[in-house]
Amino acid sequence: MIATTPEPPYYAVIFTSLRSEEEAGYAEMAERMLALAAEQPGFLGVESAREGLGITVSYWRDPEAIRAWKANMEHREAQRLGHRQWYRHFRMRVARVEREYGI
Amino acid sequence: MIATTPEPPYYAVIFTSLRSEEEAGYAEMAERMLALAAEQPGFLGVESAREGLGITVSYWRDPEAIRAWKANMEHREAQRLGHRQWYRHFRMRVARVEREYGI
Repeated sequence: MIATTPEPPYYAVIFTSLRSEEEAGYAEMAERMLALAAEQPGFLGVESAREGLGITVSYWRDPEAIRAWKANMEHREAQRLGHRQWYRHFRMRVARVEREYGI
Repeated sequence: MIATTPEPPYYAVIFTSLRSEEEAGYAEMAERMLALAAEQPGFLGVESAREGLGITVSYWRDPEAIRAWKANMEHREAQRLGHRQWYRHFRMRVARVEREYGI
């Protein structure tokens, strides 16, 4: 569940969200978007947890990979529905990972 | 609960962890470290969720602020105990936030 990522540098998209009350279609779409993201060129991994606040961090080879994923047509429809129905608030941060360590 | 951060660039520390079975002292230390981090120069905010996997993202003005926090004596003791007792695995990633948007 902890993503195995290559030596930095690579990129992270930190998506932090508070959900609305609207449940219809959300779980299916979230699962579909994780599966679709994993098929994209330059996808390196993803980590996700929700405890009131939801945090999903996806890892990407470079900014071009993130741009292509953001522009993916099926993903765009999911983004539109997310804005309109499923999220009360969110922040999306794109960051360049410079260092990594762990056990 | 979603951190309010300034215009990029700034820095994120993405801490992803899987806990051990050891509960003794963990909750108190986690709470103390959040409070102590918030007092540090250059601290900008923090977001946290655990759902099996734990993800804590703290935001900092620059790499110097992160270095100073990592070297804080009380924090070093917490890191030592974390390695030894509380975490089965973790990854710590230091990343430069380049873009941000949201609703």
